[in-house]
Amino acid sequence: MYREFDLIERISKIFGQPEGVTLGIGDDCAVLDPGRFDLVTTDTMVEGVHFRRDWSSPQDIGFKALAVSLSDVAAMGGGPGAFFLNLTLPKDEDEAFVEGLLEGLKQACVELGPAGFEVSAAGGDVTATRGPVVITTTLLGEASPAGPLMRSGAVPGDRIVILGPTGLAQAGVEVLEAGLDPDDYPALVAAHRRPTPLVRQGALLGLYGIPSALIDVTDGLAQDLGHILERSKVGASIETHHLPRHDELVAFCEATDADVLGYMLQGGEDLQLCFCVPPARMPKLWEVARREDWDVFDIGEVRGSDEGLRVLGPDGQPLDIETIGYQHFAD
Amino acid sequence: MYREFDLIERISKIFGQPEGVTLGIGDDCAVLDPGRFDLVTTDTMVEGVHFRRDWSSPQDIGFKALAVSLSDVAAMGGGPGAFFLNLTLPKDEDEAFVEGLLEGLKQACVELGPAGFEVSAAGGDVTATRGPVVITTTLLGEASPAGPLMRSGAVPGDRIVILGPTGLAQAGVEVLEAGLDPDDYPALVAAHRRPTPLVRQGALLGLYGIPSALIDVTDGLAQDLGHILERSKVGASIETHHLPRHDELVAFCEATDADVLGYMLQGGEDLQLCFCVPPARMPKLWEVARREDWDVFDIGEVRGSDEGLRVLGPDGQPLDIETIGYQHFAD
Repeated sequence: MYREFDLIERISKIFGQPEGVTLGIGDDCAVLDPGRFDLVTTDTMVEGVHFRRDWSSPQDIGFKALAVSLSDVAAMGGGPGAFFLNLTLPKDEDEAFVEGLLEGLKQACVELGPAGFEVSAAGGDVTATRGPVVITTTLLGEASPAGPLMRSGAVPGDRIVILGPTGLAQAGVEVLEAGLDPDDYPALVAAHRRPTPLVRQGALLGLYGIPSALIDVTDGLAQDLGHILERSKVGASIETHHLPRHDELVAFCEATDADVLGYMLQGGEDLQLCFCVPPARMPKLWEVARREDWDVFDIGEVRGSDEGLRVLGPDGQPLDIETIGYQHFAD
Repeated sequence: MYREFDLIERISKIFGQPEGVTLGIGDDCAVLDPGRFDLVTTDTMVEGVHFRRDWSSPQDIGFKALAVSLSDVAAMGGGPGAFFLNLTLPKDEDEAFVEGLLEGLKQACVELGPAGFEVSAAGGDVTATRGPVVITTTLLGEASPAGPLMRSGAVPGDRIVILGPTGLAQAGVEVLEAGLDPDDYPALVAAHRRPTPLVRQGALLGLYGIPSALIDVTDGLAQDLGHILERSKVGASIETHHLPRHDELVAFCEATDADVLGYMLQGGEDLQLCFCVPPARMPKLWEVARREDWDVFDIGEVRGSDEGLRVLGPDGQPLDIETIGYQHFAD
């Protein structure tokens, strides 16, 4: 177990002072270079709610804590920078767990920080608890010179695009909950344990100003797209036959007799990016995607607000979204 | 009990979008006006460690959560602005408690935000827990045009100054722990429940560039002054007979047969400001203090690093700091 000042010292050693920060760990406030950061996001993960120690390694937990914040900056079309770490740890927590957490956070900095952006800790707070571990990461970022990409810019006629399959992380949780062999579903379990935010993709979408609206998939594709619709005051149709299906998710649903569409539409925490693109900018998207080797899935269209969110089957007929659900092993 | 989105909606209603923020609650990140904020501080409070529901009202708890962050910005000589709120609440928490927390936070914004600065929420995260309540506030601020006041600028010959008595908050905790009547010690208990950070004082000290080094008293005067000494690579002597003594603290120590000096030097969480002032700037300090009606206590001198921290008795002879302690009722 660390004492507070030893742990701050340790964190200070592991994370070098990030670019854009005049004064990092060690004073009453961090001091930022003027005009550098204009994006802020903050995320809290709670033991027993967002992660379990018997499901994830300490490294996975630390990695994911920063990954979710990196995904939020990507979802503004920005690039990430300095972060702040609030660690709330049981008084008798052992060093190996804490070291593992910090290792995972450092891995996220190194593996997920895109070229041209330095992700590192500029401050934080270390506190004791008699309850579960709580980790908060607050990440600063820089919007693209073209401006931040918000949820509010979609207009009817825009195409709706995602860059990869959804539903994996939720299925991964259920593999673990049901006590199935994680080795049978490595991609699903990895999507829960160590999701990969699309940091470079988000920054490039922002740089080229391609999306009219952008969000990351954390609550589930239907709900997150719903956030865009609400903010943009528009409706949308999703063409379910164009949604990317991950082989392992399909196999999991066959094995558990579950509805794959439910996972794809309602499973959260995948950290995919979902965005709207004016038709005139689609050629630019295809060009960037080809150069960057992205998978791009054109899954639907932004419509008038009176249409709400419609989910279309392969025949073009609307499905009843209420009846599309995913199997819960627990709860 | 609130659901996540209802609570965010409620927070969004209570706290208007602060100045200096282009886009507040409701997207993946908050978007800041370019170049506005250059200070960041973050603080976590944990139920059962930093507060107890049987000792403090929900309003007190919310108020204090923001007060400690406001004190950190004051301790840089800056002015406060947008804050981010991470609330981790038991799944079955009742609405009255949550409403009280938000009320207390709002009171802190209104009562503690100094003229010319608007303190309000620009984002956050709401999460469930199976453990104690955890509250994190991350506050942005603006350094004075003269630059931020750090811990590292003290030089030998500087005077050491505080603006009020210390040791009250620690004594207040012990009044509550010992089950004494809080009405007998209203100032001590209030110092724990609802400490008043010196927000205006810090901003003015920064504006006039008076201190060479500045810190707020959270770990205890001796330890916090120690942080300045370490960062500034200097020593110091404290003249204990010049330390301000609060009548109620003296009465408490008499009643409990405790050493009042121990509380004054080692009691934390008072949110007093302690700072070093070059002799040439002392007249400016006195002038501002007279105009602002501040109590100013000149409690010692910055010395060479070889002298360490010396605590002098009324006869000018050093006391043995190891033997100065405060009474603990518990632990």
